[in-house]
Amino acid sequence: MRVLGVDPGLTRCGIGVVDGVAGRRLTMAGVGVIRTPVEAEIPERLVLIERGLEEWLDEHRPEAVAVERVFSQHNVRTVMGTAQASAVAMLCAARRGLPVALHTPSEVKAAVTGSGRAEKAQVGAMVTRLLGLSAAPKPADAADALALAVCHIWRGPAQNRLQQAVAAQQATPAPQYRRKGTV
Amino acid sequence: MRVLGVDPGLTRCGIGVVDGVAGRRLTMAGVGVIRTPVEAEIPERLVLIERGLEEWLDEHRPEAVAVERVFSQHNVRTVMGTAQASAVAMLCAARRGLPVALHTPSEVKAAVTGSGRAEKAQVGAMVTRLLGLSAAPKPADAADALALAVCHIWRGPAQNRLQQAVAAQQATPAPQYRRKGTV
Repeated sequence: MRVLGVDPGLTRCGIGVVDGVAGRRLTMAGVGVIRTPVEAEIPERLVLIERGLEEWLDEHRPEAVAVERVFSQHNVRTVMGTAQASAVAMLCAARRGLPVALHTPSEVKAAVTGSGRAEKAQVGAMVTRLLGLSAAPKPADAADALALAVCHIWRGPAQNRLQQAVAAQQATPAPQYRRKGTV
Repeated sequence: MRVLGVDPGLTRCGIGVVDGVAGRRLTMAGVGVIRTPVEAEIPERLVLIERGLEEWLDEHRPEAVAVERVFSQHNVRTVMGTAQASAVAMLCAARRGLPVALHTPSEVKAAVTGSGRAEKAQVGAMVTRLLGLSAAPKPADAADALALAVCHIWRGPAQNRLQQAVAAQQATPAPQYRRKGTV
């Protein structure tokens, strides 16, 4: 399967495309960064990010998109821009009918390094090794986007099974004690 | 001028369209809410919001779009959804080349009630009076969107002058003491 990973950001939006399946060797299909000028207005920057994402999606035709999950608790100053860029990424993917998965930074780190607290350099080193690259992709946003795609290929099936189980559970009739209560 | 106000939200995205100029009587051209199902995935909800906004923009052809400015400090639980919906609103407007203005909730309240700390009901009452409506628009998100549009019509020119002044200031050569430093 081909996954396009997005490390969302207004100034630098990392993009990484990875081919492969869990348990097999993974290969990089593309990596880069969508940049928007810091001095531009937010709406204009979102349009530039949308345009860049559309080009990546047109060129690489991924089967799924993995976006870093943004937490409002962290980095209060930059979280709004990150949330806005991630909204555009989710929108572009869903508009094409592509499945979108969100992975937290610690899930991504744990997937590629074995530790959810790994540092940037460690993530870059493992991405380089796992994809058989000659050097770590730069900037870090590009490497992080590749790590997201790798994480999605490895975690995807298990996460999907979990989501399906939760959905099935929620679709079952109300439990016995509640039905008694309404008699 | 015609302004489309957006009170962004994933579950209820308020929309209000107002015609008029500062100092003249304002009229409402349209009001409503774009709703998305709580149980849907975020990417799908963003697509629904985009589709709804496109319909409003197609039908009402505003000359400007005013969106509530989201602060990361407030309502930590819902702020991400609000930021995502507001990103879609900014994107839809900017893609059409429409100017987008952000106003804070307290700016909007101050514009329509005279107090930045006014309660919801007071905003609704003033919107009803200012636009000559027979009753306050419901839900509150719809009334807030109208208040945003009113605020933009009243504040717009002053804010634009301020922004132009700031831009002109930033475009001027570096001040004397910096030029001396580089000799």
